[in-house]
Amino acid sequence: MKVSIVGMGKVGSALAFSLVSRGAVEELVLAARDPRRAAGDALDLQHAAVFSRPVRVRAGELADAAGSDVIVLAASSAEARAAAATVAAGGPEPAGGARLTMALPNARLVGELAPQLAAGSPGAVFIVITNPIDVATYIALKSSGLPAGRVMGTGTLVDTARFRAALSAELGIHANDIRAYILGEHGDSQFGALSVASAGGAPLGMPPERVRALAHETRRGGHEVVRYKGYTNYAVAAAATLLVEAVLQNTRIVAPVSTLIDGYQGVRDVCLSVPAVIGRGGVQRTLNVELDESEAAAFRESAAVVRQILDAVSGA
Amino acid sequence: MKVSIVGMGKVGSALAFSLVSRGAVEELVLAARDPRRAAGDALDLQHAAVFSRPVRVRAGELADAAGSDVIVLAASSAEARAAAATVAAGGPEPAGGARLTMALPNARLVGELAPQLAAGSPGAVFIVITNPIDVATYIALKSSGLPAGRVMGTGTLVDTARFRAALSAELGIHANDIRAYILGEHGDSQFGALSVASAGGAPLGMPPERVRALAHETRRGGHEVVRYKGYTNYAVAAAATLLVEAVLQNTRIVAPVSTLIDGYQGVRDVCLSVPAVIGRGGVQRTLNVELDESEAAAFRESAAVVRQILDAVSGA
Amino acid sequence: MKVSIVGMGKVGSALAFSLVSRGAVEELVLAARDPRRAAGDALDLQHAAVFSRPVRVRAGELADAAGSDVIVLAASSAEARAAAATVAAGGPEPAGGARLTMALPNARLVGELAPQLAAGSPGAVFIVITNPIDVATYIALKSSGLPAGRVMGTGTLVDTARFRAALSAELGIHANDIRAYILGEHGDSQFGALSVASAGGAPLGMPPERVRALAHETRRGGHEVVRYKGYTNYAVAAAATLLVEAVLQNTRIVAPVSTLIDGYQGVRDVCLSVPAVIGRGGVQRTLNVELDESEAAAFRESAAVVRQILDAVSGA
Amino acid sequence: MKVSIVGMGKVGSALAFSLVSRGAVEELVLAARDPRRAAGDALDLQHAAVFSRPVRVRAGELADAAGSDVIVLAASSAEARAAAATVAAGGPEPAGGARLTMALPNARLVGELAPQLAAGSPGAVFIVITNPIDVATYIALKSSGLPAGRVMGTGTLVDTARFRAALSAELGIHANDIRAYILGEHGDSQFGALSVASAGGAPLGMPPERVRALAHETRRGGHEVVRYKGYTNYAVAAAATLLVEAVLQNTRIVAPVSTLIDGYQGVRDVCLSVPAVIGRGGVQRTLNVELDESEAAAFRESAAVVRQILDAVSGA
Repeated sequence: MKVSIVGMGKVGSALAFSLVSRGAVEELVLAARDPRRAAGDALDLQHAAVFSRPVRVRAGELADAAGSDVIVLAASSAEARAAAATVAAGGPEPAGGARLTMALPNARLVGELAPQLAAGSPGAVFIVITNPIDVATYIALKSSGLPAGRVMGTGTLVDTARFRAALSAELGIHANDIRAYILGEHGDSQFGALSVASAGGAPLGMPPERVRALAHETRRGGHEVVRYKGYTNYAVAAAATLLVEAVLQNTRIVAPVSTLIDGYQGVRDVCLSVPAVIGRGGVQRTLNVELDESEAAAFRESAAVVRQILDAVSGA
Repeated sequence: MKVSIVGMGKVGSALAFSLVSRGAVEELVLAARDPRRAAGDALDLQHAAVFSRPVRVRAGELADAAGSDVIVLAASSAEARAAAATVAAGGPEPAGGARLTMALPNARLVGELAPQLAAGSPGAVFIVITNPIDVATYIALKSSGLPAGRVMGTGTLVDTARFRAALSAELGIHANDIRAYILGEHGDSQFGALSVASAGGAPLGMPPERVRALAHETRRGGHEVVRYKGYTNYAVAAAATLLVEAVLQNTRIVAPVSTLIDGYQGVRDVCLSVPAVIGRGGVQRTLNVELDESEAAAFRESAAVVRQILDAVSGA
Repeated sequence: MKVSIVGMGKVGSALAFSLVSRGAVEELVLAARDPRRAAGDALDLQHAAVFSRPVRVRAGELADAAGSDVIVLAASSAEARAAAATVAAGGPEPAGGARLTMALPNARLVGELAPQLAAGSPGAVFIVITNPIDVATYIALKSSGLPAGRVMGTGTLVDTARFRAALSAELGIHANDIRAYILGEHGDSQFGALSVASAGGAPLGMPPERVRALAHETRRGGHEVVRYKGYTNYAVAAAATLLVEAVLQNTRIVAPVSTLIDGYQGVRDVCLSVPAVIGRGGVQRTLNVELDESEAAAFRESAAVVRQILDAVSGA
Repeated sequence: MKVSIVGMGKVGSALAFSLVSRGAVEELVLAARDPRRAAGDALDLQHAAVFSRPVRVRAGELADAAGSDVIVLAASSAEARAAAATVAAGGPEPAGGARLTMALPNARLVGELAPQLAAGSPGAVFIVITNPIDVATYIALKSSGLPAGRVMGTGTLVDTARFRAALSAELGIHANDIRAYILGEHGDSQFGALSVASAGGAPLGMPPERVRALAHETRRGGHEVVRYKGYTNYAVAAAATLLVEAVLQNTRIVAPVSTLIDGYQGVRDVCLSVPAVIGRGGVQRTLNVELDESEAAAFRESAAVVRQILDAVSGA
């Protein structure tokens, strides 16, 4: 199975290392604007592969991604990265807001890349990590003309992992046995679907305000990592690894990913994270978890936030 | 970490192969009344270990289990096996009922083995596979004098696996994302805790009668395997492997296992399967899933069935 | 990837369990003359798969093996098994010799099965476990009309594992770092290629007579397992698992397998074990290890032994 | 099992990700001068661990490494890194040579860290990655007062991996089946032990000049990665992961590591890479591979190079 990663920043690079370490891939193409960085990682990973399982790794251009089974879109424009770095450093908010300043150049980038990549790999599943993920996923989907299930974003999968890590530590129960989701936007309007949270099929058994506090801290978890080291990469690389393996091995796991919403909670024509079954062909279906009223409202609010950016971006 | 399997019938043997294949154990002792069978498996597995990870495997007597971290009790008396074979072959029901005819000799056997094994491995966790599991677990616990959490039976873990396999096939969702339990006795009085069943945190989305039918088929699943091949071994060996690894690696997974019930649903002083957190030290705690009224009644009925056998056994 | 196992005796059954436990297969067909035994194992393994990775397992007939990527031939005729049991029990040598008494019915069986299986799976790699392996591999190859690389027998891979296990224990070095082969016939004429044995690239550092003694014990290792438990299955199942995974994942490992010899040491038109590169398409090439004179003579002697059985069988 | 990584630069960070992804560790402490970077990685990895197996990860100071089973020394002084960066960028050679300019500050750093770390973890095995590795390993050993086997450097393990990767690609054989070592200094005086190279126990079957060319390219492989991306990290992180797992699981694999040489080829009192058996307690023993005359001379030359730096460092 052939996987291509487009964009070899800190996330793309960590994802490549993770895929090679786990040996789940036969052929891996690292495509990047800066061919030197990609070439260095490819060579380093060829040596690393000797310690796990044989994986053919090479650096390449967009055209080398042709014939992929999975394409991971991890590219970010220089402008967007500069804006992100300013915000991470606590610098002044750019005019128009940090989010939009990042969204515009990345939306343009994804709008250019996705159609070319889809032309070269018409059967591939696309996994989007480029920020803002929900916007980038939507643009990748629409600009490529692919069917909805074939384009997903890592979305709140990583936020959900943070939430489960916190609950796991508090409850002394393996994170896989904790069913708890962060849904909606991979951004500040995300929310914890606390009404469906459970541990091993039983209620969490924690005071509701404590659960809410942990969900709130989750939202800040990513920011905290960024505050400490300037960026996040390992958790999102691990999340993307899970999705790549789910598609390649058709595992049909349930994970919250950013996907086109078509009527759930009255929302349409926007990408947001909801629990989905991931396997061969990408998103095989979404699951309609039963949100309470305030959660449903939070979901619609998330939709409005992302829609607003999409409108701003498409109007730009 | 040292693991001992006591009893090298078809289940003990398959479990030994599974542990060696996965390489999760450093030292494995196979103890059996028939030293030849154990010696043959030990030698065969020493050769097999070359293909996975180095595991020291040897055949031994009860005394060789001393100093184990985990002891799996898979022994069955010749009388009990003869009774089981007769029933499997569709032969006439023994006087006193098949269940009791099997229970008596195995209860005696476990009552002899457990104290000796506990004396040699005072820090070990005991995992009981001997049938009837709930009876054998209770007797192993009481006769050894170990704390309640340190003795568990595989119980309905294997029935739960069958139920999830059936739901997984029907729903097209990975079994790990399906939360559905078979609880109570590992026997005919078991029941599906359907009121807490969910898939990926959402309702199953199947007609209730279909779910009930699958739970009913699950109860027959083990019988069907027995009908076809005369016994079951692979699924229960895989279940026991999961528990052994959970204890050795302190994974804190949630699994339904047979454990001492102390007040749940009004039941006391009997071993039955409920969801439990398994890690270092065995059962770290049980989870109080919210049963509906008919399920709660079924649980109490299971307790009565097992209690009756225990009384018959202790009166014998 | 689809794998079929034809013959569900103790070896075929253990191999099926191993493949399911490791989750290296997507679809597994168990084909057997006794449909009940295969059906029981298939059902049992469906439940076991819940504890590892999803594998579709089902029982079937020969026709259900169609479209396989790998077919493992583990069938043995009732006559051959009866002869083997007699010998294992220390009974009188059958007229014509034990080996031939086993070879004839199994040769006939393989000669019937292989062409049908090859017709249904023209692209499959065949792995032969049926005894006598070298005879059965040759007949499977010739009767199917497949190219030489596509049919291999587990041959002395399991004997080599036994030899490495013994050296590993003696030297305190991981078996994978010990390069030592048992080559030739999977039977009494096999020999240790001691002149090329090394540990971590250095000489073994043991007295030659000790190494010879271990090689000799190796030859007896399988007999000893049989003497203890009546048959061997786990080591050969683990060996076959390695080969199945090597083909499916194209790992290109080097393993001694029974393969058509075409000129090595002057031998032709017989299947014997030599080190071979195993990957996609089966045996990609054989390696010409440099035997000393006595080893080369032993190899030719092995060839003569197998050729004699082949002649007896084809003349029968 | 508790593992601590001291120094969270690009290598230490990648190693932490690798250990968490593989779940081979129970508790991981990341100790660094810059507590923010370590804290960011620790938090990011806590989230990543949700996708593999539960590992307790936290940032800490030197004191938090106390009680470790394995300590990886990956720290590098700011001065040394500045010198390395200059050289990588093709800048002017520092006065006294690049190697010594890097060696001095790192030798001082290791000489400070090792005794403190050994005091807190008197039973730990030390794995040194700090450059120049052979110098740093020697100083860690001598300054800590630990027994020789308990301190090793990754040495030429990563060079050996590069060499095997090149041979594997050329021969179409799995790297694990290729026995070929780069030995001596992890630096420019290293050499390929070509006289003991083999593939699957057979001669490589390549023209000697081609093998020498690949060994030569190997020496340049690390430089090339540095030239492309400014540093190397993934291959050395994978190499260190192998060593950590070998110690924790007592696998007794053979790997070339930097270890105290005590008489081999007439060399004494310097650390250089030779094949060693790695397991519980670190280096269990070294293997005396049979070098030809020119290789033996190259080994002594490597010893002289490293000894010269050690003298310069201790005289400074």
